[in-house]
Amino acid sequence: MEQPLPRKLVAEYLGSLLLAALVIGSGIAAQRLSPGDTGVQLLENAAATAVGLFAIILIFGPVSGAHFNPVVSFVDAAFGGLPWRHAFAYIPVQVAGCVSGAVLANLMFATATVSISTTQRATAAHGLSEVVATAGLILVIFALVRSGRADRAPAAVGAYIGAAYWFTSSTSFANPAITVGRMFSDTFAGIAPSSAPLFLVAQVVGGGLAVLLVRVLYPHSAPRPIGR
Amino acid sequence: MEQPLPRKLVAEYLGSLLLAALVIGSGIAAQRLSPGDTGVQLLENAAATAVGLFAIILIFGPVSGAHFNPVVSFVDAAFGGLPWRHAFAYIPVQVAGCVSGAVLANLMFATATVSISTTQRATAAHGLSEVVATAGLILVIFALVRSGRADRAPAAVGAYIGAAYWFTSSTSFANPAITVGRMFSDTFAGIAPSSAPLFLVAQVVGGGLAVLLVRVLYPHSAPRPIGR
Amino acid sequence: MEQPLPRKLVAEYLGSLLLAALVIGSGIAAQRLSPGDTGVQLLENAAATAVGLFAIILIFGPVSGAHFNPVVSFVDAAFGGLPWRHAFAYIPVQVAGCVSGAVLANLMFATATVSISTTQRATAAHGLSEVVATAGLILVIFALVRSGRADRAPAAVGAYIGAAYWFTSSTSFANPAITVGRMFSDTFAGIAPSSAPLFLVAQVVGGGLAVLLVRVLYPHSAPRPIGR
Amino acid sequence: MEQPLPRKLVAEYLGSLLLAALVIGSGIAAQRLSPGDTGVQLLENAAATAVGLFAIILIFGPVSGAHFNPVVSFVDAAFGGLPWRHAFAYIPVQVAGCVSGAVLANLMFATATVSISTTQRATAAHGLSEVVATAGLILVIFALVRSGRADRAPAAVGAYIGAAYWFTSSTSFANPAITVGRMFSDTFAGIAPSSAPLFLVAQVVGGGLAVLLVRVLYPHSAPRPIGR
Repeated sequence: MEQPLPRKLVAEYLGSLLLAALVIGSGIAAQRLSPGDTGVQLLENAAATAVGLFAIILIFGPVSGAHFNPVVSFVDAAFGGLPWRHAFAYIPVQVAGCVSGAVLANLMFATATVSISTTQRATAAHGLSEVVATAGLILVIFALVRSGRADRAPAAVGAYIGAAYWFTSSTSFANPAITVGRMFSDTFAGIAPSSAPLFLVAQVVGGGLAVLLVRVLYPHSAPRPIGR
Repeated sequence: MEQPLPRKLVAEYLGSLLLAALVIGSGIAAQRLSPGDTGVQLLENAAATAVGLFAIILIFGPVSGAHFNPVVSFVDAAFGGLPWRHAFAYIPVQVAGCVSGAVLANLMFATATVSISTTQRATAAHGLSEVVATAGLILVIFALVRSGRADRAPAAVGAYIGAAYWFTSSTSFANPAITVGRMFSDTFAGIAPSSAPLFLVAQVVGGGLAVLLVRVLYPHSAPRPIGR
Repeated sequence: MEQPLPRKLVAEYLGSLLLAALVIGSGIAAQRLSPGDTGVQLLENAAATAVGLFAIILIFGPVSGAHFNPVVSFVDAAFGGLPWRHAFAYIPVQVAGCVSGAVLANLMFATATVSISTTQRATAAHGLSEVVATAGLILVIFALVRSGRADRAPAAVGAYIGAAYWFTSSTSFANPAITVGRMFSDTFAGIAPSSAPLFLVAQVVGGGLAVLLVRVLYPHSAPRPIGR
Repeated sequence: MEQPLPRKLVAEYLGSLLLAALVIGSGIAAQRLSPGDTGVQLLENAAATAVGLFAIILIFGPVSGAHFNPVVSFVDAAFGGLPWRHAFAYIPVQVAGCVSGAVLANLMFATATVSISTTQRATAAHGLSEVVATAGLILVIFALVRSGRADRAPAAVGAYIGAAYWFTSSTSFANPAITVGRMFSDTFAGIAPSSAPLFLVAQVVGGGLAVLLVRVLYPHSAPRPIGR
């Protein structure tokens, strides 16, 4: 059943909010409970993100597609899965949701309602990491969608992101909306605004690269089942 | 096949007992084996809870719905999935099961059969956390139920709770029955009775909020398959 | 397709061997790599066991049912899923497999080929833990089997055992064959022979208790699909 | 739908590249973030590998079978699932992909583009471990394929490898292509070239052993569904 756009936007807003609260909140908890042990902090943050993302995608998938990510929305539009008009409407809602989620995480942990991150992440290695991380994410999603296996996307995306936190040096943001949201919490998962442009460019490049690869690997799309 | 109420109550009692034994028992083990390292303790407690909850829901789901949680039972009744009379009968059984599970955990770890927790948790941040945690839990369950995907609830709920232990500051009780049960073990997962009322109120608020959101996102319910 | 008994026995032997190698081998690795940190050792041992058990049950399930556990085989016979003659033939093969797996683990880690464990585990709390752990295991398996969801058993059993390592004080052996096998490696997962009888008795009691509970919860059995 | 060979080779190259980047990259991150704690390093490396492998197999499975491993390709050919001509074409592409992935991991973490590993791993216990690890891997895959459950292979293989990192002393390479790739990064997951021949021989022996066992356990193959 095709969903009306306003309901889809509610889903994208709430899902993006929960995603940012998940990523940033679990980062704050990790930082507080495992002080000085960056490895265990990332293990805690990655494990929580992987399983939480699985649940959040299950919640909102049948309504909006559970993108929470402008790159995913644009690629979906490029492959004909989402009207371009909807893709453009998704973007500001995803960004607003992620910023709200950062604020919610800050409030849940009784830290400053808004604090601008000072974590510098702008290096060439981080940029390359974001290209790879985003390309992999788009590959996972659209390999599944285009072969009639979209019902496996919630587990696959959660698992992929949990791994990518570790196999990239950038800890795999792979999402412009969450990149913006993470600027608003000066905690474990944050990113300084001055480092954000590199991440955004790398994510767009990764998304473009993935579109090419998906076209090579899955030139024909399976009929898309509605509602999972 | 509709189940007779007594069998459902046996399932809710046993499931609530196992849930509390799981949550509290793994907390005691974590506290003993990783002394002084709160982060690793929560990692151990959360991982055990997530996978154990998955198994427990699978055991009892076809019999009683595997609620173990008064908020879930009331919301199920509100959405027409459970007779109100059954929802009211579930509550005392869920609470008794969780208290029994606390005692069982205490016994399995050779600590005092009953000890009243002294862990203070009553802060505004914890209250907000419980609102968010409970709302998210109800969203996960009823998004799945109302879209014909109830067979995915065991994995989704386990994963969600495992994440919510981390992304909230309250470690996500999200359940009035387990909140009562956790008062009866002065160990890692306990809560002082004086902190319980705030948690209970916040859980009810979160449940109410989630009902509104579910109505917006899933206004129509898919036919509910029986027996999964 | 009904499998011939010799092929089933090969499956039970190999599966029990892999199970013991998994449990004991990952215990040795944990002990060596995380010296002095019992909590992290158990986390490593439990995580490896949970996911490994999932894979091993998938390998052998369609051939023999993937029991690797005399309690499971007897309960299966009691519920009419396995001829009693086969159940009796399974037991020595399961024990031999678990002992062989202990030896294999010792060899893979270049420790003494056979060493008798000196880890005392005979306390009342451990006995109670084994009753609970075994009852829960039997409940998981036969709740699934009797409701036509046996295809979910590999994930459910792996998850359950991973949790039960934590929520019991005995770390949930829940299996007489692996209890015997674990005597043959004086390492992390071992058990002193003098502690084994208590465990064996408790496991039988837990199995019996679970049969009663399964009869209450699932009085009628769904038709059993062959081959998953 | 049968895929053309060039598209399959692209899939094997990209998948092998991502696999090596995953294994080696997460090893570098673990080494940097948890210095001096080998146990936690392996926990991080194993968790990331398990969930990442699940995602990577989902991406490429319908195109090439998602082997990324010469032993798997040869066994698939032996069982009639892959033309021998394709199996021979897969090998160099898998090796090239794994070497490229090692370089990519090095670049993402801003270490030397290529460095030859100095980690000695040639002991009898490691050799035995690789026989067992590879035999288990082949058993998992072909037990599923030959019983019509190939759609469960992504989760099963990820879970199996995550466990085998722990229950073998070699940390379960179980793959000649990744063994070669790991020589090109002198980091956590590396292997000195002088240790590689033992691993390669052991992997071939393990593969051969598994073929015998699969023939005993699954003498008849279920019809293979195309496209999952």
